[in-house]
Amino acid sequence: MPLDHERLASVKQAMAQEQLDALVCRLPENVLLLSGHWPLTGMTFIYFPVDGTPLCVVPHCDEREAREELRAMDCVTYTHAVLGCENPYEAVAKAFKKAIRGRRPSRVGFEDGFECVAAAWNTAEACVPASATRALLESVFRKKVLVDATDLFYGLRARKTAREQEQLRRANEISALGLNAFRKMVAPGISGIELLAHVEQAIMIQGTGYKGARRVRAFAQVATGAAETAIGYRPMEITTTRKLAPGDLALLELGVVADGYWSDRTRVCAAGHPTPLQARVFETVSNAQKAAIAAIKPGVKTAVVDEAARAIIRSAGYDKEFLHVTGHGLGFRYHEPVPLICPGGETVLAEGMVHSIEPGVYFPELGGIRIEDDILVTATGTEVMGPCEAHL
Amino acid sequence: MPLDHERLASVKQAMAQEQLDALVCRLPENVLLLSGHWPLTGMTFIYFPVDGTPLCVVPHCDEREAREELRAMDCVTYTHAVLGCENPYEAVAKAFKKAIRGRRPSRVGFEDGFECVAAAWNTAEACVPASATRALLESVFRKKVLVDATDLFYGLRARKTAREQEQLRRANEISALGLNAFRKMVAPGISGIELLAHVEQAIMIQGTGYKGARRVRAFAQVATGAAETAIGYRPMEITTTRKLAPGDLALLELGVVADGYWSDRTRVCAAGHPTPLQARVFETVSNAQKAAIAAIKPGVKTAVVDEAARAIIRSAGYDKEFLHVTGHGLGFRYHEPVPLICPGGETVLAEGMVHSIEPGVYFPELGGIRIEDDILVTATGTEVMGPCEAHL
Repeated sequence: MPLDHERLASVKQAMAQEQLDALVCRLPENVLLLSGHWPLTGMTFIYFPVDGTPLCVVPHCDEREAREELRAMDCVTYTHAVLGCENPYEAVAKAFKKAIRGRRPSRVGFEDGFECVAAAWNTAEACVPASATRALLESVFRKKVLVDATDLFYGLRARKTAREQEQLRRANEISALGLNAFRKMVAPGISGIELLAHVEQAIMIQGTGYKGARRVRAFAQVATGAAETAIGYRPMEITTTRKLAPGDLALLELGVVADGYWSDRTRVCAAGHPTPLQARVFETVSNAQKAAIAAIKPGVKTAVVDEAARAIIRSAGYDKEFLHVTGHGLGFRYHEPVPLICPGGETVLAEGMVHSIEPGVYFPELGGIRIEDDILVTATGTEVMGPCEAHL
Repeated sequence: MPLDHERLASVKQAMAQEQLDALVCRLPENVLLLSGHWPLTGMTFIYFPVDGTPLCVVPHCDEREAREELRAMDCVTYTHAVLGCENPYEAVAKAFKKAIRGRRPSRVGFEDGFECVAAAWNTAEACVPASATRALLESVFRKKVLVDATDLFYGLRARKTAREQEQLRRANEISALGLNAFRKMVAPGISGIELLAHVEQAIMIQGTGYKGARRVRAFAQVATGAAETAIGYRPMEITTTRKLAPGDLALLELGVVADGYWSDRTRVCAAGHPTPLQARVFETVSNAQKAAIAAIKPGVKTAVVDEAARAIIRSAGYDKEFLHVTGHGLGFRYHEPVPLICPGGETVLAEGMVHSIEPGVYFPELGGIRIEDDILVTATGTEVMGPCEAHL
């Protein structure tokens, strides 16, 4: 793959600011950031010096994909998942030691603070740095050389390069395939779990291969009816076999990953004709989303964007039911901490940031209504990624 | 939920052996082990003293599910994922400090060594212990009080209680729904990604609600044709849009989780009539699996079981193509380290262990053939969980 010079420059600038001689990482989301390669199994490690060629240490079984995707890095493999294979920590330590021979770094950033992680392509199991990774790093560098670079990683990830934006645009276009499938299928008689399965199937089948996407996964959650959608603000909904009754709401929360780049969307549809109250609340939430999006541009504090959405919902009298923040960063993971679009948010929006805008209100009797899309901050304003109209 | 006295006794015995006054955990797989509750978001923490009532600290939005599932534990909630919510680490520290008041433990086991983790019900993102969790624990206990209990957790998890066996039986019955759907659909013209999506859909729709299962997820990988199945030994396959040609093999690797309990199965089917060579290799692999299963009983070393499978494959001349171990533990995660069924394996099988038996051979021209099922070690021999005949 050709170099992403924009990303390379931003990484080196951040490292210089933090006086880091090197970064090391193994979380797939950070391997992707630094190398362009999305690991299959989470057993890929990177040594990234501020000067010189970075090194990627890859399980041999992932070598083909790594060599296709890696950008201008040395690549060393170790045997993995076969009889007589190497101890991965010893193999990585050996490769790292060779890479630093003669120029031992005095300050090395690593992933000590990631308490929430994206899966590798193997979404059923995540590989993460714990005591064995710390021991490996301490065997290569001295312990006092290692500093936590979690905030540096998150800061770098907050602003996407042109190439990363293109990947996120594609992930959101794939997500829109699922949103459209959802809208077509919501009707009395279908269950939440059927909606979930059909949305995921639409994304996997139509999304794999879409504009060259090779590794696509969908994570849908569908709440149906008032009781379930009223708690639709939760980070994770339970989708049930309950069937939609006429007039019921269905709320789809949809995570999609395409080649390591994430999208996070939400739609609500009514089974049959919406009631006048449902329509009024939906319009309020939709207007709140539009107002927030209209407030976004480089230089604006996130509190201003949050307030733009919240003011519309307040004027409709629903502000106590708008329980959560207006948005969050995303892209290298389903949810990222920077920027957070929330009351009092002091983060200043900058070109290249990608975040959700997702106002929602939740009533015990009516249920919950949320509309969520992913917004790119451009030089002059915004781009809604993978646009897809929201209709009740 | 009623207490699982068998699990409670094993935990207390292991803690006594390691002279631990308490265990703390937050990984969903260990929360499930100690409490019977499978967290929704991965932000649930447990303090489990060797004497006295354990404490579970739960995000308020998960309270209903936690109270339904928790067994004889105190339950404290903190606000989460809403405006003005608490700092989870401060909330958990406060609850833990209150729990240990007047009886400060002198040795506390925690999850320092988990470098591979199962997702929570939120399978798109995993919450894991990193620097913030270590800081929280060091603020409650003294640093030198904390000891790594990773091996203790894995040891406990290796032997399943009668109730856990029941859960794994159900997960494997749900998995069999997907295996059967796969077998019916393999035919010339269908693509790997279509097979994947249909298998997952069958499991989600038929499995949710099956014998009361509330939270079911499937993770399918389907390799098709010789080139793809020949590397089907990899920990993670890429499923493509390639369509099956007549005589092609399709290899399904299938992870299923039902309410936190995992199953791991593999099937291979031919599109149309298998060739005589495919049939011969399949029969060899099937015989190897049967021989390994026949060798399993309490008191037997895992090397003996591995050799039973390997001898059959060796006598057919395919031993260089049987690249990997014969099996691994599983249950609280897709893959667990104990027991490992491998050449030279010294672990002694015991009643209640659950592990895969998955011989496989991989040829560049023919492709890969593997058959995998989950086996429970019983007092007298074995039980194949969720039985489902394998046919080419």
